[in-house]
Formats: sequence, C-alpha cells, structure tokens
Amino acid sequence: MRDAYPSRQGTTAETLPRQDAIAYAPWHAHAPLTREQHAAFERDGFLVLRNLFDAEEVAALKTEMASLLNDPSGLEDETVVREPKQDLVRSIFRIHAQNALFHRLAADGRISRIIRHLLDDDVYVYQSRLNYKPGFGGQEFYWHSDFETWHTEDGLPRMRTISASILLTDNTPLNGPLMLIPGSHRNFIQCRGETPENNYRTSLRKQEIGVPDQHTLTRLADEAGIVPATGKAGTVVLFDCNTLHGSNGNITPDPRSNAFFVYNAMSNQVTEPFAATSPRPHFLAERGSVTAVTPVEGRITRHRAMPKAA
Amino acid sequence: MRDAYPSRQGTTAETLPRQDAIAYAPWHAHAPLTREQHAAFERDGFLVLRNLFDAEEVAALKTEMASLLNDPSGLEDETVVREPKQDLVRSIFRIHAQNALFHRLAADGRISRIIRHLLDDDVYVYQSRLNYKPGFGGQEFYWHSDFETWHTEDGLPRMRTISASILLTDNTPLNGPLMLIPGSHRNFIQCRGETPENNYRTSLRKQEIGVPDQHTLTRLADEAGIVPATGKAGTVVLFDCNTLHGSNGNITPDPRSNAFFVYNAMSNQVTEPFAATSPRPHFLAERGSVTAVTPVEGRITRHRAMPKAA
Repeated sequence: MRDAYPSRQGTTAETLPRQDAIAYAPWHAHAPLTREQHAAFERDGFLVLRNLFDAEEVAALKTEMASLLNDPSGLEDETVVREPKQDLVRSIFRIHAQNALFHRLAADGRISRIIRHLLDDDVYVYQSRLNYKPGFGGQEFYWHSDFETWHTEDGLPRMRTISASILLTDNTPLNGPLMLIPGSHRNFIQCRGETPENNYRTSLRKQEIGVPDQHTLTRLADEAGIVPATGKAGTVVLFDCNTLHGSNGNITPDPRSNAFFVYNAMSNQVTEPFAATSPRPHFLAERGSVTAVTPVEGRITRHRAMPKAA
Repeated sequence: MRDAYPSRQGTTAETLPRQDAIAYAPWHAHAPLTREQHAAFERDGFLVLRNLFDAEEVAALKTEMASLLNDPSGLEDETVVREPKQDLVRSIFRIHAQNALFHRLAADGRISRIIRHLLDDDVYVYQSRLNYKPGFGGQEFYWHSDFETWHTEDGLPRMRTISASILLTDNTPLNGPLMLIPGSHRNFIQCRGETPENNYRTSLRKQEIGVPDQHTLTRLADEAGIVPATGKAGTVVLFDCNTLHGSNGNITPDPRSNAFFVYNAMSNQVTEPFAATSPRPHFLAERGSVTAVTPVEGRITRHRAMPKAA
C-alpha cells in the first residue's frame, strides 16, 4: 500500500495537501449540528460547543474523576501516566473501558451523533483518557498533529478520526487551555527524525519526535493565529485528527481537567504502523475486535455499573 | 536589628502584615500620575501604563536587544543567563550598566518620575535585566514575592522598591505574560526552608526556595483573582516589590520580551542578608557606591554612547 502521508523518513519535512475529506457527509436539515457549526468545523478543523453538559452533570463527572485520582489502584497500571516532575497523575488512559460513568460519557448522543454525522460512518473509541493537568506546574504539551503520531506509530490509515475534549474545569487563557491553529488540518506537515523504540513511554510525558519544525509553525500561526479553546466546565471541543494543537504549562492554582475521547470511523481501522517497528499498546490505540458506539440519550448521572462485555 | 520580615526560618510559614507604606507620598495635583493611577497602585500593588513608549522607540529597543542576543560576547559572562533546556539566552542582567540605550531607558522620566514620586525619595537601579523569553518553549517563573528573595538573600531592609517591566513584544494571555495577584503586596508570606549556598545560580533558572505554599496561593487567588499584565509592546507594568507574581511557559512562536528595572529608595540600601550566609553578586543587587537616577526627558532613539562613570 502506498503511504498517503509519509513522515519521519529522515531529514525531509514538507507540507503535503490533505488527501481526505474533512466532513464526510454534507450538512442536511436533520444533521445533529447547525449549518454554521458544520461549516466552521470544515473551515477551522475544530468546533467549540459551549455548555453542552450542565453543572450537575459536570459535578458527577468531577466526583468520579476525583475518586479515580485519589485511588487509581483499581486501574491497569500502564494506563496511569504521571507528571514529569511531580508524582501527580497527569492522565488515565482507556478510561471508557475501565469506568462505567466515563463509558457512558463516551457514548453520549450529544457528542457521538455529531461525530457519526461528520465521519458518515459508525465509530468506535480509538483512544480515551482523563487529563487532570494539575495547577501549580502542570506541564505543557508541545504543538503536534495527533494524526501524524497515530499514522506513523499506530497505523491509522486515513484522516477520518475526530477527538472530543469535555472540559471538567473552567478553561481560561491562563490555566493552560488547548490552543489550536485554525485551518492547519488542511495540510499534512511531515516531521523529521525516526521513531525510537517504545517512543510512547516518553512522548506521553514530553513529545520530542513527531513535532513540526518551528519555521512551519511560525508561518501557520502568522497566517491564521492561535485560538485558545476556553470555556466553562461542561463545554466540549471537537477537533479533527490533523489539526495542530498544544497547550502551555499551568502555574495557576486551578487544574485544567478534561475527559478526552477519540472516535475513529469503523472503515478506518488501524493496520501496521507506517513508521515504527511495532504498534503502540492497545490502551493508546484500540485494535482487533472493536465495538461501534451506540449513541445514548439523556443526562449523565452517577452510580452505574459497567455493562457486561459483549 | 530586629528583622521586620523573617522568612526561611525552617518550617514556619505564616502571613505577616506589611510594616511599610506602599506609596510613600500622598497624591497631589503635580504628581506624575493620575489620582486613579495612584490609588490603583496602592490598592492592587501594580499599575499598567499602556503604550507609554511609541512604535519607533520600541523598534529602537528591539533592534538593540537583538544585537545583544546575537552577540553577547561584549557582556560580563555572569550576567548572561540561558534557558534550562535550550542554549537560548533567557536574560541579560545589569543591562543598564552595560549598554548605553538601556542605561538611557532606565532613567526615562516617564518611568523614573513616577517611581520617585511613589517612593518619595531619590532612587537607584537595584537590578536590571533584559528578559528575552523565547517562543517554542520559554520556561515558566513560579509564583514569588521579589522582596522575599531580596530581603533574605541581598539584605534589602524594607519594602520601598518598585519594579518596571517595559514590554518589548506584545504580551497576550497565551505567550506567558506576567501574572499578578492583586492586593498580595499587603502581607508578607513567609517561606519554608533555608537558603542553599549560591542559591541564585539555580533560582534564576528555576525557583524552588523562597516560594509561598500552595494553600496560601490558592486562598489569595480565590479571593482576588489572577491578573495577566497583557498589552502591546511599549506598555509598562509597575509593581511593588512584594506583589506576588509569576508567569507560565510559552510554546507559541511569539517571544515575550521585556526590559526590567528595579528601583530602590536611596534610604533603603542593602545591609547584610537576613537569611543567607553571603550576599548575591552585584549584578543581582547593586551594593556599595550607588548612583541616584536623574530623570531624562524626551524620546528614546538609538546610537548613543555610555556616559563616563562618575
């Protein structure tokens, strides 16, 4: 198979045009988002849905998160990632498969119906995580395209994947919000270097491979600006897998927490990595027998049991 | 001499009321700032003076800064501080004594006359520096009161010292602007621990001693909020030596540069350190024969020679 998006091939770092659709279906009157929202997602590569979850739902999710951070002993070891300089939990991966409430959240119709519409396919959860991002020194995430990593290291074939970040705390410009470069999803920025073995063990803490060069970042930011996805807790940010994004560190006392779900089209399941010797583990990219998400309607409440495995 | 502001005495970390004035003279009709500005400085512990320097003056200062960063070989070695993780210059200290243009800037009447009024005394430059704060990973400065360090490590007796930051690039909420906690100058927050020998060699890169505890910071930020001192290049931020401040890192492409001058009242010159075995070097705190600043009127232009030493 010819590689539509070659990267990490040594010293080359060119900007290649995107080969794939952004929204795979046109907007129509029964679509689960407005015409303007549909157009904004296509144009910018992201969409902010303010206050999609109400205060009670956010409270339920935060209580659940606090109890997981407080006692992560029931979780698979490898899914718990800590801050580089502190012993604080930074992220818990595969949260949709380990916790009933976040399993329910991943299927929430307010998000999953929009994703299914935009990707025009059944979808499954490719990756999920809780990001705690503590105050008083939560670390930055440097600029990157998720697709570049997922393609080279997981074998994700095409750009038919959308992420949803559900804000669990207020995200202000000062507490290290997600920052995006509008329109950056329209091109694929090749990255220099080769993938070291088990790169994910360090890249989850601090990404050094698979990042665009400074010259290209400067040009894109000059042309399109940088948009912080700020909002109250309960706001949801959807973004295309190839939109360049990053976040600054956070010395304020306020944590910048979110639940994060990546939805991939069933027709776009992973193959072998395009530029790594072996694929990353399942908790970073589901592979094998994956289950399509069935949208669930209604509000989020606590106290539910995990559904039995199919 | 009884220590009015004991700190780094082991495990104690109390909040003590300020013993000193904030503005040492009342406002009057001939004061070089408005009644509202005077009141704001007293209330908040800082004052933002928007666009005090015009675009041509900023351009002259930036050209000079670029030439110093490009070739720091003419500068005293010890005054050039680099980023922890990169070889980029982070700060150049004692810039007012090493460069004619920044010597002129330090004396600029638009700043120095306000400082002289607020401190009601002749003033001298206690410390000066150029902060480059590069894009793509400039590091954070954690929360601190400058006075706490200057008192314990330099022997600065009382709170009669004001800093001026002259923004040389646009400071936005996203490129790691100075953040201040309004009203925090009204109390002295004791810090835990003792001062290691030559602490300044690491604290200029990353401060770990002389920082307030998280509980106190959370309380102060909850009560008063956190204000980013954003503004266009040419804006000046004045702040009291005891106002808690810090800044996040900066992954954006845009550097966050400023020229920074600390003015101390002639009547408040340093003694022996209050909680360190030996004082920090002169480039961090002038001591001995210091020279009062004579305010200079008029606009900033390039091409000037250093005045002969007195």
